[in-house]
Amino acid sequence: MIVDMVRRSDSRVRMISAARQLFREHGYRGTALVDVIAASEAPRGSMYFHFPGGKEELAGEVILAHGTTVIAQINRAAASTDSAAELIAAFLGHYRDDIADSGYRQGCAVTPIVIEVTPASEALSAMTRQAFGDAITILTARLEEKSIDREHAKELAVNTLVAMEGALILSRALRSRQPFDAAIAALTASA
Amino acid sequence: MIVDMVRRSDSRVRMISAARQLFREHGYRGTALVDVIAASEAPRGSMYFHFPGGKEELAGEVILAHGTTVIAQINRAAASTDSAAELIAAFLGHYRDDIADSGYRQGCAVTPIVIEVTPASEALSAMTRQAFGDAITILTARLEEKSIDREHAKELAVNTLVAMEGALILSRALRSRQPFDAAIAALTASA
Repeated sequence: MIVDMVRRSDSRVRMISAARQLFREHGYRGTALVDVIAASEAPRGSMYFHFPGGKEELAGEVILAHGTTVIAQINRAAASTDSAAELIAAFLGHYRDDIADSGYRQGCAVTPIVIEVTPASEALSAMTRQAFGDAITILTARLEEKSIDREHAKELAVNTLVAMEGALILSRALRSRQPFDAAIAALTASA
Repeated sequence: MIVDMVRRSDSRVRMISAARQLFREHGYRGTALVDVIAASEAPRGSMYFHFPGGKEELAGEVILAHGTTVIAQINRAAASTDSAAELIAAFLGHYRDDIADSGYRQGCAVTPIVIEVTPASEALSAMTRQAFGDAITILTARLEEKSIDREHAKELAVNTLVAMEGALILSRALRSRQPFDAAIAALTASA
């Protein structure tokens, strides 16, 4: 019984994780549910069991999962650094190395959802909005803790997330770390 | 004869323009060729006449068309301003107003191509790379003409285009001009 429940929840988590990876490389519409099932090695019939709302519900879970990792990355960068400038360099440096390590194949999992299905999908519009709002809130708080005043911390947080999303696109197009390095240089100078 | 040629070239231009609008709202894979034909009011059989390479060839033309308008926008902003800071504010301000005017529905036409089909499509990878490279080159030149030294001009150009792409995503998700305003404040201070 317990083994069954673990397996069941396992296959749900694996499907979300597989979808997240596929969205990062091929976008939302470029990811077929059959590919998610194959990549997660889940039983074929389990997709609509775990996600009765289909691809839109799965995408909502991808937004939650990806948003959580971004917040964890902000907190990891904050815990391992002393200044606001170091925090920003560590945070953006992580995404720079991540896209380079993927051979410039994998960007943000949430960006494709924003540009392909918002505002068309009301549910996913609300969730992407909340994901970006939460990341801004947490990054602002961590910057304030490193002695940046509230107003400047909020602006710096927005600019850091703008830079992350923009640099993921330019780095992928140019196959280069340089957009991230330029953003890190400018933002750390302004911190 | 001449009227025929004009009409023929007209329908090709209209198809590129319609595809560009549709990519901005629905992405690359979210845009069906049948929708491009309907939106451009082109004869149904004319798609493969004008674009024997199909959707990939049409997307290549969208990259060229969109890249050209970005360069025109850089030059327009440069011609109407005195300083590098004013140039950057005018350039980013245009895209801020543009996405707000669309009801936060229409972003960049090239971003979906980058995140959905690069590096999978070699042809489109080369074209997106060139489009971003050209925009960086032209913006660097216009900033140098406004008395920014070469090294700083290059970094500022990259950061301005990173900010444009990132702010188009965050503005659309948050349904707000604020990501653009934060980017303009930071970049004009550093110019």
